[in-house]
Amino acid sequence: MSVPLNQQTASRLAAQLSRREIKAEQLVQACLERIASREPEVQAWSHLAKDAALHKARELDRGAVKGLLHGLPIAVKDLFDTYDMPTTYGSSIYADHKPVADASSVALSRQAGGIMLGKTVSTEFATFQPGQTRNPHNLLHTPGGSSSGSAAAIADYMVPLGFASQTAASVIRPAAFCGVVGYKPSFGLINRSGVKALSESLDTLGFLARSVEDVALFAAAVTEDRALMQLDISSTPRIALCYTHEWEYADADTQKAMQHAAMALAKNSINPRELNLPPIFAQLLQAQKEIMAFDLARSLAHERRCHADELSMKLKDLLASGDQISLERHNANLQLAHNARAMVFHAFGEHEVLLVPSAIGEAPATLKETGDPVFGRIWTLLGCPCVHLPFYKGRSGLPVGLQVVGRHGEDKVVLRIAKWLAQRL
Amino acid sequence: MSVPLNQQTASRLAAQLSRREIKAEQLVQACLERIASREPEVQAWSHLAKDAALHKARELDRGAVKGLLHGLPIAVKDLFDTYDMPTTYGSSIYADHKPVADASSVALSRQAGGIMLGKTVSTEFATFQPGQTRNPHNLLHTPGGSSSGSAAAIADYMVPLGFASQTAASVIRPAAFCGVVGYKPSFGLINRSGVKALSESLDTLGFLARSVEDVALFAAAVTEDRALMQLDISSTPRIALCYTHEWEYADADTQKAMQHAAMALAKNSINPRELNLPPIFAQLLQAQKEIMAFDLARSLAHERRCHADELSMKLKDLLASGDQISLERHNANLQLAHNARAMVFHAFGEHEVLLVPSAIGEAPATLKETGDPVFGRIWTLLGCPCVHLPFYKGRSGLPVGLQVVGRHGEDKVVLRIAKWLAQRL
Repeated sequence: MSVPLNQQTASRLAAQLSRREIKAEQLVQACLERIASREPEVQAWSHLAKDAALHKARELDRGAVKGLLHGLPIAVKDLFDTYDMPTTYGSSIYADHKPVADASSVALSRQAGGIMLGKTVSTEFATFQPGQTRNPHNLLHTPGGSSSGSAAAIADYMVPLGFASQTAASVIRPAAFCGVVGYKPSFGLINRSGVKALSESLDTLGFLARSVEDVALFAAAVTEDRALMQLDISSTPRIALCYTHEWEYADADTQKAMQHAAMALAKNSINPRELNLPPIFAQLLQAQKEIMAFDLARSLAHERRCHADELSMKLKDLLASGDQISLERHNANLQLAHNARAMVFHAFGEHEVLLVPSAIGEAPATLKETGDPVFGRIWTLLGCPCVHLPFYKGRSGLPVGLQVVGRHGEDKVVLRIAKWLAQRL
Repeated sequence: MSVPLNQQTASRLAAQLSRREIKAEQLVQACLERIASREPEVQAWSHLAKDAALHKARELDRGAVKGLLHGLPIAVKDLFDTYDMPTTYGSSIYADHKPVADASSVALSRQAGGIMLGKTVSTEFATFQPGQTRNPHNLLHTPGGSSSGSAAAIADYMVPLGFASQTAASVIRPAAFCGVVGYKPSFGLINRSGVKALSESLDTLGFLARSVEDVALFAAAVTEDRALMQLDISSTPRIALCYTHEWEYADADTQKAMQHAAMALAKNSINPRELNLPPIFAQLLQAQKEIMAFDLARSLAHERRCHADELSMKLKDLLASGDQISLERHNANLQLAHNARAMVFHAFGEHEVLLVPSAIGEAPATLKETGDPVFGRIWTLLGCPCVHLPFYKGRSGLPVGLQVVGRHGEDKVVLRIAKWLAQRL
């Protein structure tokens, strides 16, 4: 076997594990070796469960095949509760916190045979104050956030699968900056029980991996819906390019990625149509910001009351902005979102999915911030399923890509077309 | 002052506390004395924070008036996390659980000057296996559930205010059986962060007290929206009686309460109109049951995996029923709910609120179950604000009442009309 185990995709590993061609212990060892050599530089992990993971791997190697994730090591974003590992939510307030239960999604992954390899760095309460993680492609650049550690660890071949979550762009942006596949499911698809709540109308759990098949496998295990893994397409997909109302933010690299995608579609006999979103969608960016700030100011009421001096200035400013939004304005924002959600079906027209920017461009050359979430916000608010595909390099040689966006509830369509596109971009 | 402090309403107490006419310490002492004499029989509390509450009361008596709840003792349903008290979620699995943070709603109440007097008994994970609490009106009868302890404690004059939550009928049913006022706000109004999640599309935090003014005061403090306390009405409210598609479940006592309400409306020059809900609403009862079971089976994934032998048979059966519901069926149920929610505005017609049954009848003479939630389920699923009003006695001399139901988001209308009705029923 030429490709080292830690570099293979989860789907390929799962097939070998279920046929007993490789051992989970070997795979965990390979991941741990990679982590031992690279973690001092990348700093993706807030906790590594070395012994527990090896122990679990041996147990799985001895027993029957448990489920879709049998023997696969998984990185758990440190926003998800775990009963056997610390959970800090990216804040010093919770430095010593050991939850008593797993998040629902973590427990379901264990039930399917997944091995929790450790906790990965989150920004502070999954907002904008970075943790210590660096971009594995260039250590002076941000990995993006808030799912910084999961994205960096997967990009760096430390682990094949990682949990992530998105309130603004926290699945898609780190996927883009680290050059991995990110899947933010439809709002409501993944049970959020046991994940620190920031904004109930926005928080969406998601998945990171190195292929579309892998995020589909992971999601199929957590939702117990194997149909998510059926990725074959019988007819030519109906795809439109969508520059969105935020296009002015896109830099030359993202512009080139869109041009590249248009050419690739044309080569595959798809006339690259452009789709304009309804004018009212231009208001969603601001509405998402305000809903997030309003909700955060309340969700973190305990931390503000009892641990104010341990909150970053960046977060305090965000929370203060949330205090300025009246309940009337918040309700108007929710109503706008409700109306826009109802317009999505027709707005897509004859197209099944849209190809839209994932980020402004490459990962910025800073470790003091995680980049602008501008291209994620409206899709989180709309609850649309999104898959980020990495397929391009920017001017600094860092990854760039686009996201495939579908109608709410059409996760299967989005995953299928994302796989089709991944083979052609 | 003739009425003992522990028997007064929160609104009256709040006025005296803010004018420094009474001390918070006196009030807490009065509540503690009542608890000392009655708790051995009623068993409403899973934890009593006697010393901490007295300490906090003295601190508040010395300092400036903090907010709307200044000095008011509050009962916290044991489904809500509290950083300084144990939180069992009504399950032996969590017998020794001490969360590290307050639920958002608890922290906001403390911020407003509220004193957390203790934790009140919840059924097992707020489902159907009762805790030890008894109905204070007759100790052989259930207090209802799942907010059993809060309702019983308020009815028995142990505390003026209590947190509650509803996934099926867990605010309204215990309010009805214990004869107190229960307010289930519009879905989404109260931040759920830090409350054990059971079903994300249903879970709704609510309030129990001994008057409409009191639940409005409590909600105004937690939402930081004082407009909720403006309860004056300028014109005659537009109220319809609604027997709902579940009317066949109503027993003679609830039937008489409806007749009594019709007569009271007529006396107040309101022609008691009857409103029929759209036929499709008849499907909501089953849909709510299935959504709840589907979600519970996933929300409690950790408990099922690691502590299956500590779950009651009643809960295990419910979870197993959730496993039988396919994702397709679940999505169809959610779509039905979505469609029905969109119909509510027109379904109410010219009426501002509906008067509907809160429960089948009086509290059943059993401590082995908490009564049928049939009359709460559809309003939880629809996300409509509801206020239970106790105003009648059934054949066993136990409380009976009705709930005032409004359109989603029209909490102020519901509270205003509930107050108007409370004075006339």
